[in-house]
Amino acid sequence: MSSTTIQMTGVLDPREDWTADHCPLADALDVVRTRSAFLVLREAFYGATRYDEFVTRTGLSEPVTAARLRELTADDILAREPYREPGQRTRHLYRLTEKGAELLPVLAALMQWGDRWVQDGGARVELRHRDCGAPVEVQLRCADGHAVDGGGLELARRRRDR
Amino acid sequence: MSSTTIQMTGVLDPREDWTADHCPLADALDVVRTRSAFLVLREAFYGATRYDEFVTRTGLSEPVTAARLRELTADDILAREPYREPGQRTRHLYRLTEKGAELLPVLAALMQWGDRWVQDGGARVELRHRDCGAPVEVQLRCADGHAVDGGGLELARRRRDR
Repeated sequence: MSSTTIQMTGVLDPREDWTADHCPLADALDVVRTRSAFLVLREAFYGATRYDEFVTRTGLSEPVTAARLRELTADDILAREPYREPGQRTRHLYRLTEKGAELLPVLAALMQWGDRWVQDGGARVELRHRDCGAPVEVQLRCADGHAVDGGGLELARRRRDR
Repeated sequence: MSSTTIQMTGVLDPREDWTADHCPLADALDVVRTRSAFLVLREAFYGATRYDEFVTRTGLSEPVTAARLRELTADDILAREPYREPGQRTRHLYRLTEKGAELLPVLAALMQWGDRWVQDGGARVELRHRDCGAPVEVQLRCADGHAVDGGGLELARRRRDR
């Protein structure tokens, strides 16, 4: 199974000497930690902005939707903007911030995996590149442009010289 | 904010006419739905195989670790293999299946986001391409090889002709 295990290098090896207490993955999951948060984010990427749109499109309950919108706003993943229609009270729109927008590869990777492994490649929708129409895939690439699979990955202490 | 909203096309537009009941992203989150499941998976990618390694390295409690290992095995993300050391009772190793190994882009994308947005680019570790040493990034690319950002994405009914 070496093809799916990330190699450790240098001071990280052996793994026992290293603790993951500052793991960026764990930190990310402290911010986006529930299935319902991912569903709210999905709808934000699909263009939902109003509270009632989030409720309807996610299928979540009103209290759960409201809690997720509040948390994602507090974490600066969504930005809350007032708007007012004639004769109505002030309401709020929710839009992705840059921080939120950069979660797109996480959602796209989950979608790709769910299509392949839960729906057996049978999902009815796909992400496409608008300019050329070709289907879009999530890939791991190094800064020198090589496609990388699990077997080609190593976890190392970060270099500050690049 | 159009640069971060995925465009809908054809029968998917307007969004109200389409329900996400077969969403592959939601299906993926039905399988890997907890922070602790992601942490167990992280350690599997880092080479943990034994129950006690998963407990120590994730920092999760024994009951939670055992529950996640049981669930991930039931969902065919980890495979359970018996092993026996001399004079000991039979124990089990847990290894990533192909289905589990293909979750790597999800974890790598979470790690990349946590580094950039929670740790302000200060993570002490990074994923590198073993062959050339360059840091690895998660990217969206179309089948024709173009790098795609959120603004260049559209969600469309899948074509079966590619």
